[in-house]
Amino acid sequence: MGTKRQIKLGAILHGVGGNISGWRHPDAITDASVNFELYKKWTQKAEAGKFDFVFIADGLYITEKSIPHFLNRFEPLTILSALAGVSSKIGLVGTLSTSYSEPFTVSRQFASLDMISRGRAGWNVVTSPLEGSALNFGKTEQQHPAHSERYRIADEYLEVATGLWSSWEEDAFVRNKETGVFFDPAKMHTLNHKGSHFAVKGPLNIARSRQGETVIFQAGASESGKQFAAKWANAIFTGQETQDDAKAYYDDVKSRAAALGRKPEEIVILPGIGPIIGSTQEEAERKYEEIANLVSIDKALDFLGRFYEHHDFTQYPLDEPFPELGELGRNSFRSATDRMKARAKEEGLTLRQVALQVATPKPTFLGTPEAVADKLQAWFEAGAADGFIVGAAGPNGLEEFVDHVVPILQARGLFRSEYEADTLRGNLGLPIPVNRHAAALPNR
Amino acid sequence: MGTKRQIKLGAILHGVGGNISGWRHPDAITDASVNFELYKKWTQKAEAGKFDFVFIADGLYITEKSIPHFLNRFEPLTILSALAGVSSKIGLVGTLSTSYSEPFTVSRQFASLDMISRGRAGWNVVTSPLEGSALNFGKTEQQHPAHSERYRIADEYLEVATGLWSSWEEDAFVRNKETGVFFDPAKMHTLNHKGSHFAVKGPLNIARSRQGETVIFQAGASESGKQFAAKWANAIFTGQETQDDAKAYYDDVKSRAAALGRKPEEIVILPGIGPIIGSTQEEAERKYEEIANLVSIDKALDFLGRFYEHHDFTQYPLDEPFPELGELGRNSFRSATDRMKARAKEEGLTLRQVALQVATPKPTFLGTPEAVADKLQAWFEAGAADGFIVGAAGPNGLEEFVDHVVPILQARGLFRSEYEADTLRGNLGLPIPVNRHAAALPNR
Repeated sequence: MGTKRQIKLGAILHGVGGNISGWRHPDAITDASVNFELYKKWTQKAEAGKFDFVFIADGLYITEKSIPHFLNRFEPLTILSALAGVSSKIGLVGTLSTSYSEPFTVSRQFASLDMISRGRAGWNVVTSPLEGSALNFGKTEQQHPAHSERYRIADEYLEVATGLWSSWEEDAFVRNKETGVFFDPAKMHTLNHKGSHFAVKGPLNIARSRQGETVIFQAGASESGKQFAAKWANAIFTGQETQDDAKAYYDDVKSRAAALGRKPEEIVILPGIGPIIGSTQEEAERKYEEIANLVSIDKALDFLGRFYEHHDFTQYPLDEPFPELGELGRNSFRSATDRMKARAKEEGLTLRQVALQVATPKPTFLGTPEAVADKLQAWFEAGAADGFIVGAAGPNGLEEFVDHVVPILQARGLFRSEYEADTLRGNLGLPIPVNRHAAALPNR
Repeated sequence: MGTKRQIKLGAILHGVGGNISGWRHPDAITDASVNFELYKKWTQKAEAGKFDFVFIADGLYITEKSIPHFLNRFEPLTILSALAGVSSKIGLVGTLSTSYSEPFTVSRQFASLDMISRGRAGWNVVTSPLEGSALNFGKTEQQHPAHSERYRIADEYLEVATGLWSSWEEDAFVRNKETGVFFDPAKMHTLNHKGSHFAVKGPLNIARSRQGETVIFQAGASESGKQFAAKWANAIFTGQETQDDAKAYYDDVKSRAAALGRKPEEIVILPGIGPIIGSTQEEAERKYEEIANLVSIDKALDFLGRFYEHHDFTQYPLDEPFPELGELGRNSFRSATDRMKARAKEEGLTLRQVALQVATPKPTFLGTPEAVADKLQAWFEAGAADGFIVGAAGPNGLEEFVDHVVPILQARGLFRSEYEADTLRGNLGLPIPVNRHAAALPNR
């Protein structure tokens, strides 16, 4: 079992949910996004289910049209650190933007989370799609860096971060009480980075992690996003609606990585899924209808606007074809809006249909536990995915997945029954990187 | 007991210690600064001892001459968040600099810690004394803002932070499943701050804390520092060697606060103490000698240099009078270096004497538990302190203080036997501030 390829699983914890109106469900806990006891319960449930990691998404700008979960939620590094204290094996992955933060601080906070959790930290590197983010960080919306510039900044940012994580060799801290030598100065490395966007001297004031470096996640789907992922990512969170799309994406990114000289198996590709499970197909369908019916068209239009720089969609007739939007939406959520526009044209959808589909998409993974497991297995075995990130639709979705789908995957030998390792890299099957300075001097 | 004035107690958790060579003590755990299990044990011990809070100090720049604890330690927000998950009553206070961070991010991270801990967060606002910090944040040492400018930045920073913490009124989140109203837009407030140093739109994407706002700590002792504290601080961490000095400082800050229209009792003044406890006075003295003897003169000179912009003191003869240093040290640790220079002149101290005194000062609070409790009581009753921050010298100092000194203070009615509240403000006896927008409209 140690060598057989197995499915990797993450759980996205998103409080009242990615859905606009999920909080109105009769079983929903309405303060879920700021309820630590609930986040703790979910994390411990995911750990009992042998998940590789929990995942906390993020954003840096809200307006009164933002979805409920975005208005009032935990900040990723703080909630992940709190969860580190109440878990022992599961990975802790959070989103943080390279467009509005300092690499010294962020590298240090992830290194500290990694130290607290003894090697379980992951960082989902994003570049902040929303132009409004600029307004919270001393800039105007016009000063929000353009899409490709954001990726150039991110690229240099990761050079700095990985450089800072190499400040101390693995055995730098000698701590010999007799001799009084606390550390070996030859194994401390000052970065002295001076680039186009950042100047950071170093060294970092925290040692290297047990897993070498914090695991890098990435979720971009645009050209720049995929190229960045192929270069830097250890794991990719992607949105794919069909197995064919997922397979195409998977092959694309893995061959980009190979072209850059990386081993394709060292990038774990994880489509996000929002499964709905029922004891019968009909029960699962009914559960979906129940969730979809909570959404009003007004809220759906607001939600749609967020993908298009908060464009006001109430100006268009609801039951006419989806409007022509030109370049709108291309600087923020480019891949999502390109796909939306293409699909609306192809299928001749109205504005109402697009808005409701975007607000409460019908999950690809919907049905009995067996049916959901079958489809997961099919994607996995077809080479369309190395695993999945479960963002449960409905209030008890994670519990249902752990209790009913995980045992099927385990019985089929597709998923672990015990953790193989106690670091995130270890469980994801990724090698532990050696400090670049130590690696350069193997015979010292 | 509810109304009688009582001592407040905090515990500074500093891994291998504020002392250069404390890690060499036979009982010391040498990886203490990055050992989460130990931080958890200390926090739970302090909570068992009914301490008001634990305190995590910080710094943003190291060189190979930095003391061991500074080289490799946890970052405050992450370790405090982890400790929030494994404690329930004790406050969680951490240092964060306003000179090298973004107010939106920092306000949000403290608000998130405050939410996770259900109202137990505290922020020790510092302005980064070390010029080298600039080098880790894209600037040169010459661009490190001057002392008074750093305080102007901090002042505007706190305007932004308290403004962001007022983004949502206490009852803004309605969460009515029936009507579909998640929040009341009239109770969401967009800050639109545009100042000399910061432009931050808001609103913050997290609700107001149960304790209103994160408790503001401050530790500056210079003129600008005291004025800043008098305006903003809820609690002050100060270093005072004698009861008279402490009393003078106490009266000074409280009258500055009164002059600004604040109630003096709403600023809690807490001298830091590094007690050494023995079953006899002789045992305590012996413990001090044991610690002091671990320090070499070379390390002491390095440590001294840190207060003077990493000045090289090895160039001076050790046993001649402390050298004339002019303005050196005045832009970083101004109050500490002014005091050091004055004392060296007054007492005719040599460089060796100053270096060793600075590296391992003999604690003012040293003796039997009764003797230490007597002195704490004397300072408290003389109005020289509202409480103390215990930074234990020696590896088991916190345990000894909790086990032997706390019960004496409790028996004398000077310290709580049970927490009065479950927020940090509540335990410190501070009022819970009402959102400024709600306060402005009492009859709405």
